[in-house]
Amino acid sequence: MTIKPLADRVVIKMVEAEETTKSGIILAGSAKEKPQVAEVVAVGPGGTVDGKEVKMYLKVGDKVLMSKYSGTEVKVDGQEYTILRQDDVLAIVE
Amino acid sequence: MTIKPLADRVVIKMVEAEETTKSGIILAGSAKEKPQVAEVVAVGPGGTVDGKEVKMYLKVGDKVLMSKYSGTEVKVDGQEYTILRQDDVLAIVE
Amino acid sequence: MTIKPLADRVVIKMVEAEETTKSGIILAGSAKEKPQVAEVVAVGPGGTVDGKEVKMYLKVGDKVLMSKYSGTEVKVDGQEYTILRQDDVLAIVE
Amino acid sequence: MTIKPLADRVVIKMVEAEETTKSGIILAGSAKEKPQVAEVVAVGPGGTVDGKEVKMYLKVGDKVLMSKYSGTEVKVDGQEYTILRQDDVLAIVE
Amino acid sequence: MTIKPLADRVVIKMVEAEETTKSGIILAGSAKEKPQVAEVVAVGPGGTVDGKEVKMYLKVGDKVLMSKYSGTEVKVDGQEYTILRQDDVLAIVE
Amino acid sequence: MTIKPLADRVVIKMVEAEETTKSGIILAGSAKEKPQVAEVVAVGPGGTVDGKEVKMYLKVGDKVLMSKYSGTEVKVDGQEYTILRQDDVLAIVE
Amino acid sequence: MTIKPLADRVVIKMVEAEETTKSGIILAGSAKEKPQVAEVVAVGPGGTVDGKEVKMYLKVGDKVLMSKYSGTEVKVDGQEYTILRQDDVLAIVE
Repeated sequence: MTIKPLADRVVIKMVEAEETTKSGIILAGSAKEKPQVAEVVAVGPGGTVDGKEVKMYLKVGDKVLMSKYSGTEVKVDGQEYTILRQDDVLAIVE
Repeated sequence: MTIKPLADRVVIKMVEAEETTKSGIILAGSAKEKPQVAEVVAVGPGGTVDGKEVKMYLKVGDKVLMSKYSGTEVKVDGQEYTILRQDDVLAIVE
Repeated sequence: MTIKPLADRVVIKMVEAEETTKSGIILAGSAKEKPQVAEVVAVGPGGTVDGKEVKMYLKVGDKVLMSKYSGTEVKVDGQEYTILRQDDVLAIVE
Repeated sequence: MTIKPLADRVVIKMVEAEETTKSGIILAGSAKEKPQVAEVVAVGPGGTVDGKEVKMYLKVGDKVLMSKYSGTEVKVDGQEYTILRQDDVLAIVE
Repeated sequence: MTIKPLADRVVIKMVEAEETTKSGIILAGSAKEKPQVAEVVAVGPGGTVDGKEVKMYLKVGDKVLMSKYSGTEVKVDGQEYTILRQDDVLAIVE
Repeated sequence: MTIKPLADRVVIKMVEAEETTKSGIILAGSAKEKPQVAEVVAVGPGGTVDGKEVKMYLKVGDKVLMSKYSGTEVKVDGQEYTILRQDDVLAIVE
Repeated sequence: MTIKPLADRVVIKMVEAEETTKSGIILAGSAKEKPQVAEVVAVGPGGTVDGKEVKMYLKVGDKVLMSKYSGTEVKVDGQEYTILRQDDVLAIVE
C-alpha cells in the first residue's frame, strides 16, 4: 500500500531516535516530543498550486529538517508518516 | 438523491473502521474520533475559483487521506458525507 | 416585495424540517439548531467582484447545501432568508 | 451640510422602525438593537480602490440590506448615518 | 516646524468641540472620547504604495470624517495631530 | 561598526528627550515610554521586496515620526537603534 | 554533516555572548534570553518562492541582526542553528 501525495505535498517518515543520535543530529528544545529530521518517502507531482506553478525539488531519500508543527500525521501499515507542503521543509541534511 | 459539489469541491464518504483495519490503514492520535481515510463519491467541475483556474485531478472512487478538520459534514439519505475543497485532500492511497 | 442580491451573492430560503425528512436529507451534528439545506430564491448579477470576474452558476430553484455559519440572516414579509456569497454554497442536491 | 463619501463608500440612513413594520421587513435575531434595512443617501465616486477598479452600482434612494456590523456610524445635523463600502451592502429591496 | 506625511498618508487636526457644535456635526456613541471630524493640514505625495499606484484626492483644508480607531496620534508645537492613510478617511463634509 | 539594513529597511536613532522638548515636538499619550521622533542613520538598498519594486525615499539625517510599535530594537556600541521598514515611517518633520 | 537550506532560507549560527561583548554589540531588552546577532553559515538557492522570484543577497560569513522570534531552531553535531527566510534578516553589521 502506497501514499501518493497531491499537488506540492511530500510524505516523510521520521528518522528513529537511535539513528538520529548516531548521525549526530539532535534537535533543540522539546526534541523529545517529536524529532524534526525525516526522510522523504514520496513526492507529489507539483504543478499549479493556488494559481502558482510549483516545481518539486525534493527527491525520495532526501533527509530533511522541518518545523515540528508542520503537516498532518497519518499511520499506514503500522508506520507513521507526515504529509506536508514542500515549502514547509526547511533544509536538506547531508 | 445525489450531491453535486460546486467549483473545486469534492464529496467524500468515510471508509468504515472495519475496512480500515483490513487495509492496514490506521490513523495516528485521535483517530478514534474521526477516520481520515475516505472515498471520493463526487467531484465538482473545477473552473475559475477565486480568480484562478482549477483543474480537478481527483476521480470518483479514489481513496484519499485528509486532515480531520477539513470540510463540512452533511448527512444525505442516512449516509454521512464531507464536502471539502480538492486542495484540502492530502494524498491518494493505493 | 423582493430582495435583489448584489454582486456574487445569492438569497436562499431554508427548506422546512418536514420537507427535509421527506427528501431523506438530514444534517449531521447540531442540525437541530439550523438546517443546512436550502432553496435559492434570488441570484445576484455576478460581474467584477474584488477585482475578479465572477460568473453565477446557481439558478433560482436550486436546492443547495451550505455551511451553517455562512451568510447573513434577514426576515422579509415574515419569511427568513439568508444572503451569502455564491462561493459559500457547497453543493447542489438533486 | 452634506457628506460626500470617498472612494467606494456609500452613506446610508437607517429606515425608521415604524416604516420598517409597514413595509413588512423585520430583521431576525437581535434586530431590536439595530435595524439592517437602510436608504442610500450618498454614493462615492468609485474609481481605483486598493489597486482595483470599482464601479458604483448603488444609487441615492436605493433601499438596502446590510450586515449590522458593517460600517462606521456618524451623526450630522441631528441625523444618524452609517458610512460603509459598497461591497458590504448585501442586497437591494424593492 | 512642519509635518510632511509619507506615501499615501495625510495629517489631520481635530476640529474643536465648540466648532463641531456650531456646524451641527455631532458624532454618535462614544463621541465624547474623541471627535471624528477633522481638517486636513498636510497631504503626502502618493505614488507607488505597496506595489499599487495611489493618487491623492484629499486637499489641505478639507473637512473629513474618519473612524476614531484610525491612524497614529502625534503632538507637534503643542498641537495634536493624527497621521493616517488616505484610504482610512471615510468622507468629506461640506 | 556599522549597521547596513537590508531590503526596504531603515535604521533610526531616537532623538533625546531634551532635544525633543527644545524643538517643540512632544508626543501624545504614553510618550514617556518611548519617543516616536527619530533620526534616520542608515537606509537599505530597496529593490524587489516581496515581489514588488520598492524605491527608498528616506535619506540619512531625516527626522521622522513613527508608530512606537514599529520595528525591532537593537543596541550597537552602547547606542540603541530601531530597524523598521520604510513604509512604517509615518512622516518627515522639518 | 551539512545543512543545505531550501528556497529563500538561510542557516545562521548565534555569535557567542563573549564575542558579542568584545565587538561592542549588545542587544536591548531581553537580550539575555537569546542573542540576535548571528553569522550566516549556509544560504539557500533562492529562485521562485510562493510565485515570486527571490534573489539571495546574503553570503556565508555575513554577520547579521534578526528578530529573536524569527526562524526555527535545530541542533546538528552539537551546534545550535536557526533556519529562517532571508527576508526575516534585518541588517548586516560590519
